[in-house]
Amino acid sequence: MIDLDVLKDSFVTTPSKIIMLVVDGLGGLPHPDTRRSELETAHTPSLDRLAGESACGLTLPVLPGVTPGSGPGHLALFGYDPLKYLIGRGALESLGIEIELREGDVAARGNFCTVDAQGNLVDRRAGRIPTEVSVPLCKDLNEIQVDGVELNVYPVEGYRFVLHLRGEGLSDQVTETDPQITGVPALEATSLAPQGEKTSGIVRQFAKQAREVLKHEELANMVLLRGFSSLPHLPSMRDSYKLNPAAIAAYPMYRGLATIAGMTVIPTAKTFADELETLHQHYGEHDFFYIHYKPADAAGEDGNFDAKVRALEELDTHIPRLRELKADVVVIAGDHSTPAIMASHSWHPVPLLVHSRWTLGEGMESFSERSFAGGSLGTLPATQIMLLALAHAGKLAKFGP
Amino acid sequence: MIDLDVLKDSFVTTPSKIIMLVVDGLGGLPHPDTRRSELETAHTPSLDRLAGESACGLTLPVLPGVTPGSGPGHLALFGYDPLKYLIGRGALESLGIEIELREGDVAARGNFCTVDAQGNLVDRRAGRIPTEVSVPLCKDLNEIQVDGVELNVYPVEGYRFVLHLRGEGLSDQVTETDPQITGVPALEATSLAPQGEKTSGIVRQFAKQAREVLKHEELANMVLLRGFSSLPHLPSMRDSYKLNPAAIAAYPMYRGLATIAGMTVIPTAKTFADELETLHQHYGEHDFFYIHYKPADAAGEDGNFDAKVRALEELDTHIPRLRELKADVVVIAGDHSTPAIMASHSWHPVPLLVHSRWTLGEGMESFSERSFAGGSLGTLPATQIMLLALAHAGKLAKFGP
Repeated sequence: MIDLDVLKDSFVTTPSKIIMLVVDGLGGLPHPDTRRSELETAHTPSLDRLAGESACGLTLPVLPGVTPGSGPGHLALFGYDPLKYLIGRGALESLGIEIELREGDVAARGNFCTVDAQGNLVDRRAGRIPTEVSVPLCKDLNEIQVDGVELNVYPVEGYRFVLHLRGEGLSDQVTETDPQITGVPALEATSLAPQGEKTSGIVRQFAKQAREVLKHEELANMVLLRGFSSLPHLPSMRDSYKLNPAAIAAYPMYRGLATIAGMTVIPTAKTFADELETLHQHYGEHDFFYIHYKPADAAGEDGNFDAKVRALEELDTHIPRLRELKADVVVIAGDHSTPAIMASHSWHPVPLLVHSRWTLGEGMESFSERSFAGGSLGTLPATQIMLLALAHAGKLAKFGP
Repeated sequence: MIDLDVLKDSFVTTPSKIIMLVVDGLGGLPHPDTRRSELETAHTPSLDRLAGESACGLTLPVLPGVTPGSGPGHLALFGYDPLKYLIGRGALESLGIEIELREGDVAARGNFCTVDAQGNLVDRRAGRIPTEVSVPLCKDLNEIQVDGVELNVYPVEGYRFVLHLRGEGLSDQVTETDPQITGVPALEATSLAPQGEKTSGIVRQFAKQAREVLKHEELANMVLLRGFSSLPHLPSMRDSYKLNPAAIAAYPMYRGLATIAGMTVIPTAKTFADELETLHQHYGEHDFFYIHYKPADAAGEDGNFDAKVRALEELDTHIPRLRELKADVVVIAGDHSTPAIMASHSWHPVPLLVHSRWTLGEGMESFSERSFAGGSLGTLPATQIMLLALAHAGKLAKFGP
């Protein structure tokens, strides 16, 4: 963890409480007309007030210029070097839907897709079929049998599913079958290394049978498979930081990330308001809470500037309820920026706020990328946020004489 | 040194002069009533004027969130990675009182303490007995003999002393005897590794005899031993930077730190005014001077906000005398923050000022944490201050063709 073995005796368990609110896709960029970012446009009185009482700065999720996926973005927030601890898409999706991934298992993320009569891809997401359509199709795929492996297909959400393989001699050294473009057929899985031979053969057989099973479907008549991966080995936050950490996240992928980081996942319902109530109910049981807010990222990914502004304004209305807990430390961070004008994740530094009785309260007037650039925390790697959170909570003692 | 071997040919010796003024515990936090830090509260016209003519920024002593002891804090200022070059408490104290620590020697920091009739600790610092009381007690302890080792006890200050061991087969792999709490007995020293067996046995015998020697004392009737350590191996600043560096520090520990960094220690008297006169007298003899100002840290550690403000105001009155030397580079830095409201060292970024004819002079209006957060140097690791100092003095030449 953070490769800071030399600090390991400095972490101490205390009764103090840390809440880390991760606003997915928090950072943005100015709208070309107004020259104001989503955060600068949004009316966020509670966040602004909090900024005035906190230490502020910007974080780099991976490195300047490097845009993280949700996996690396979150691992960095929890203190793991995302360039060292690599996490496969299949493993992430599996853990997110609570599939037990054992040592030696291999998982892949599946997409239903649409191919034409020649087998060329027409839609890589099968018209984004809803979950109620994909669930029975997954049941059909689950009937597929391939010699030498225990094979299961689990629906995730919409057009997405997980292919889970269990058996002897499996490996994640298998190429993806998604060509990333339309107008061409799905790729054949091949091995990336000798140990991937057996698994790639299984995957080819699965894909062939899947085409057969789905051939009468109008939209979801084929599958694409990506991110073959095994369980990553991460040191536990519990041991590394001497914490009893918990995660509250409505979306499966984030629960999965929390699980591999060693957090206890507390079941919750669909909205952030639900997550907050879950936090209130279980506040006595843990000393660290990761709580996840998704809508800002979703709006940014959709390229909808106004929707992202509204998502941030909605977040703002929840801040008073969060503050009622009077946690010793409140961290507000983001796993990456998702500027609406880019309609995607980006590499831009992400606002960070640390609130505790030991923060300078340097009086930032607003919660935004621009104002936080002058904050006392400076611009720091996201992997160092945990150290700051622990220090402000009195959980990171003096180093050296 | 800074692990920048690739830069080693870029360091050049020149006649230019660098003064690094280290204000111990320089950074602070706002007073809850006024929302102004010690630096913001203090009337410091000379420092403020200097800030307006200098490049300013903030430094991280170790990492965000990591609170350094004086050892790591100073090593970082001199360019040593404090996570790599570890320094034991015993070694530090020994060097500070000019005990010659040779290869293979082991030193520990000793505290006189008070135990009750059952041997349970009542006061871990023996009522903070003054030096004049502890000196004769150290002389008594110095009479203790243990087979197979040359053993010496040296008074440091107040209730503190150094136990110095010289002999064959010694090791610093010995546990501390200070339980860190009262109401329990002192711990028995044990070995942390097989090579510590002999030394831990010696320490147990010493502690037993010490109890006997001191048994009739009212306050200082027992000893606690911490930080068993040998001489750390540090590359010399002299060689690494091609400097002829000198240290002027009234307090022993800081002289010790300068010694292991390869500086020449210039004897001085008790106050900062004395240190400044020493600097003036020896200004022709070196090209780099580390000069140490202690009172800000002492007041911060006492939790005395007003006293820290006064200590900073007192420092300010010395700045004109410092500037009379017209050094090519004046660096004002701190080894760590010591916010009075925390009454301890802290992890908060520390103001840094670099004055030379090559600084931007960006016109910061005041010398404070908040204003320096927006300075041109940004927030940087303290280990990089030396590079800046050398560069501004023309002692760090162009890298690469």
